[in-house]
Amino acid sequence: MKDKIRVGYVGLGGRGKGQMSLSLEMDDIEVVAVCDVYDDRVREALDIIRQKRPEIEAQGYADYRELVKRPDLDAVVVTSSWQMHARIAEAAMRAGKYAAMEVGGASSVEECWRLVRAYEETGVPCMMLENCCYGREELALLDMVKKNTFGELIHLDGAYAHDLRDEITGGLIRRHYRFRNFQRRNGDLYPTHALGPIANMLNINRGNRFTMLTSMASKSRGLHDFAVQKYGVDHEYAKINWNEGDIVTTLIKCANGETIRLRHDDCLTRIYSRELCVRGVRGMYQEDGDRYLIEGENPWPEGSWEPKWMKFSEDLPKRDHPLWKWFQQAGVKGGHGGMDFLVQRAFFEAVKAGTQTPIDVYDAAAWMSITTLSEQSVAMGSLPVPVPDFTNGLWLDRGPDPKSRYALDAVHYDLFD
Amino acid sequence: MKDKIRVGYVGLGGRGKGQMSLSLEMDDIEVVAVCDVYDDRVREALDIIRQKRPEIEAQGYADYRELVKRPDLDAVVVTSSWQMHARIAEAAMRAGKYAAMEVGGASSVEECWRLVRAYEETGVPCMMLENCCYGREELALLDMVKKNTFGELIHLDGAYAHDLRDEITGGLIRRHYRFRNFQRRNGDLYPTHALGPIANMLNINRGNRFTMLTSMASKSRGLHDFAVQKYGVDHEYAKINWNEGDIVTTLIKCANGETIRLRHDDCLTRIYSRELCVRGVRGMYQEDGDRYLIEGENPWPEGSWEPKWMKFSEDLPKRDHPLWKWFQQAGVKGGHGGMDFLVQRAFFEAVKAGTQTPIDVYDAAAWMSITTLSEQSVAMGSLPVPVPDFTNGLWLDRGPDPKSRYALDAVHYDLFD
Repeated sequence: MKDKIRVGYVGLGGRGKGQMSLSLEMDDIEVVAVCDVYDDRVREALDIIRQKRPEIEAQGYADYRELVKRPDLDAVVVTSSWQMHARIAEAAMRAGKYAAMEVGGASSVEECWRLVRAYEETGVPCMMLENCCYGREELALLDMVKKNTFGELIHLDGAYAHDLRDEITGGLIRRHYRFRNFQRRNGDLYPTHALGPIANMLNINRGNRFTMLTSMASKSRGLHDFAVQKYGVDHEYAKINWNEGDIVTTLIKCANGETIRLRHDDCLTRIYSRELCVRGVRGMYQEDGDRYLIEGENPWPEGSWEPKWMKFSEDLPKRDHPLWKWFQQAGVKGGHGGMDFLVQRAFFEAVKAGTQTPIDVYDAAAWMSITTLSEQSVAMGSLPVPVPDFTNGLWLDRGPDPKSRYALDAVHYDLFD
Repeated sequence: MKDKIRVGYVGLGGRGKGQMSLSLEMDDIEVVAVCDVYDDRVREALDIIRQKRPEIEAQGYADYRELVKRPDLDAVVVTSSWQMHARIAEAAMRAGKYAAMEVGGASSVEECWRLVRAYEETGVPCMMLENCCYGREELALLDMVKKNTFGELIHLDGAYAHDLRDEITGGLIRRHYRFRNFQRRNGDLYPTHALGPIANMLNINRGNRFTMLTSMASKSRGLHDFAVQKYGVDHEYAKINWNEGDIVTTLIKCANGETIRLRHDDCLTRIYSRELCVRGVRGMYQEDGDRYLIEGENPWPEGSWEPKWMKFSEDLPKRDHPLWKWFQQAGVKGGHGGMDFLVQRAFFEAVKAGTQTPIDVYDAAAWMSITTLSEQSVAMGSLPVPVPDFTNGLWLDRGPDPKSRYALDAVHYDLFD
């Protein structure tokens, strides 16, 4: 077990800067290398390091291939544009460094295979930093699922439902990769915030797997309408043709017969939700409405033909995952209500201990592949497309890794001290 | 305009008896003929008529083909099993009687065409009694859509989400047709409660139409699990193989680019919802959570990055459809919060006036076809299947009929006196 580890950050936009700053608050993490194609971002990142951790001597890079070569690095965190995640992570693994990638979707199935190949050829782990796997609600639900509270799982819903019209339409001036993605592509561009937690509940790649999906895109009106509203009808942004459908719905089938409904929903007015819904034979949970039902536990009003909902947020303290309880006792840190801290620590603990990461390369490949497969299905008029088995059959015998200190289900193996 | 009309009821199970009893409360409706294959149901229906309206001389039938022949009948209401709706309605039209069908789905596309053919060859209208088109919330939303409150519509959700495990598993002893449907079929068996109101909002068959769908079914576990719980593992009900997936999700694409997500969800523990969700460029409504958003109208808390939901039920009085306001002043009658009364009156008013029905044969054909098309898609592994244009091109030039007193959008033509 290493006392300290040395980390490089590639991609220093808003998210990269934020994640790096959070790492700098951890005494055992030294960010010694930062990289971006934009020089001003590199300078700003170096300034932040000097301010927060004057004892660290950090170096800036314009080319990630130079950064990953540094022999003193233990790990590389990739916080670049979506389309660069896999190739930078692959380069890191092939240079012998633990790779962590921010969330995003793949541009091709081959891109996912490259990650798998790099891991299998080098033995170096690769983790997707899917922070929502460490969300308080998601962790509590995972614990309930592992305890069979909902009975056998049948169907789950999830979404990335976030009004990003302002960010997307103004993305070009902000050098944000979302702009080109929404302009040129059409599919579920950002599946993992909901799909990661769902995959954990369904044991995907651990006795279950995604087998196929079909995807349907609505027309595209929201971004144009917003641009006209905000910039005026004669502005160049009002003349852009956006390819991305406002609502993209994907249905995924699993080997064990469960279905998943995923929604990508960034281009219309709305209020944020991940639309998580868990349906089992004996219970259900629904984020929208903050409600849940466990057969036999819900109050049943006299004379009513059905029980009454229970409020999930009220019962959360008694449903909390042990990892969250431990985390609360330790004191909440970092963004997004603690998720960012937890997911970073899960990665760094694995790096320090030299163990597998709780979210591994097969998870990353399967989750990211949904984007390119969704695009394929949309392009072919919602034709069903198969999801590859990125484990090449290993999913049949794989179970959760009991050695990961921060494994999502570590608690079920009595690993907490 | 006829002062009184004479009506026959075919199918006298729970729903038939209920609808007939409601008709008997209307002074201008005379139920003079009742029909069922079960003799005890016919006797019971005749008893109800004698009690409620002793002045009516009603006759019982075992064969609907005899009932529809009666020359004194103005209309036939079909409240039989799903699989008999279309053939009885067709027989009624061909005998010159206005036909009304309870809700349900088709067993084949040909069945839908038969309805269309019978109408086009006879000129006799046929209405599906989709009561949810007259639900208070659905009417208010229709009015908001017609006023462009949500902006251009992009996507809608809907469901029949109703824990019917007890009714379905015990259906055989209760002579309920649901039993065989869930045992043998696999698809969205009951699409119209949500799809009818959605079709009205999207102007389906009136300048828009369903073009294709894809459907995915989860595994089937809920009914078996329930039967084991309730009857014991050795009971014959615990040994039934149910074909119907617990959750069947259908995605429908429309000619004007809108998408619809429909869910059939009767086999797991849950609390009732039609899961209605309306997504426009400038606003949204969501039944689950009782909330809505209209750009510029929602409160926006100081310092928050997004507005706050408004509660739909609280604002309903100011959003009510004029038809509902009129109805409330007249005094609410009938089941399901007034919907049953409104939908019956819509039909009977058309019969009395000799006009087209507000929900017409093309609506019935398109809505019912979703069931058989969903089965086809599920059978073929979620392959997309085309939805026929049951208007044979008339949808291009069809608009709402301004002559129907109870037309769903009558208010927009100043038809209320």
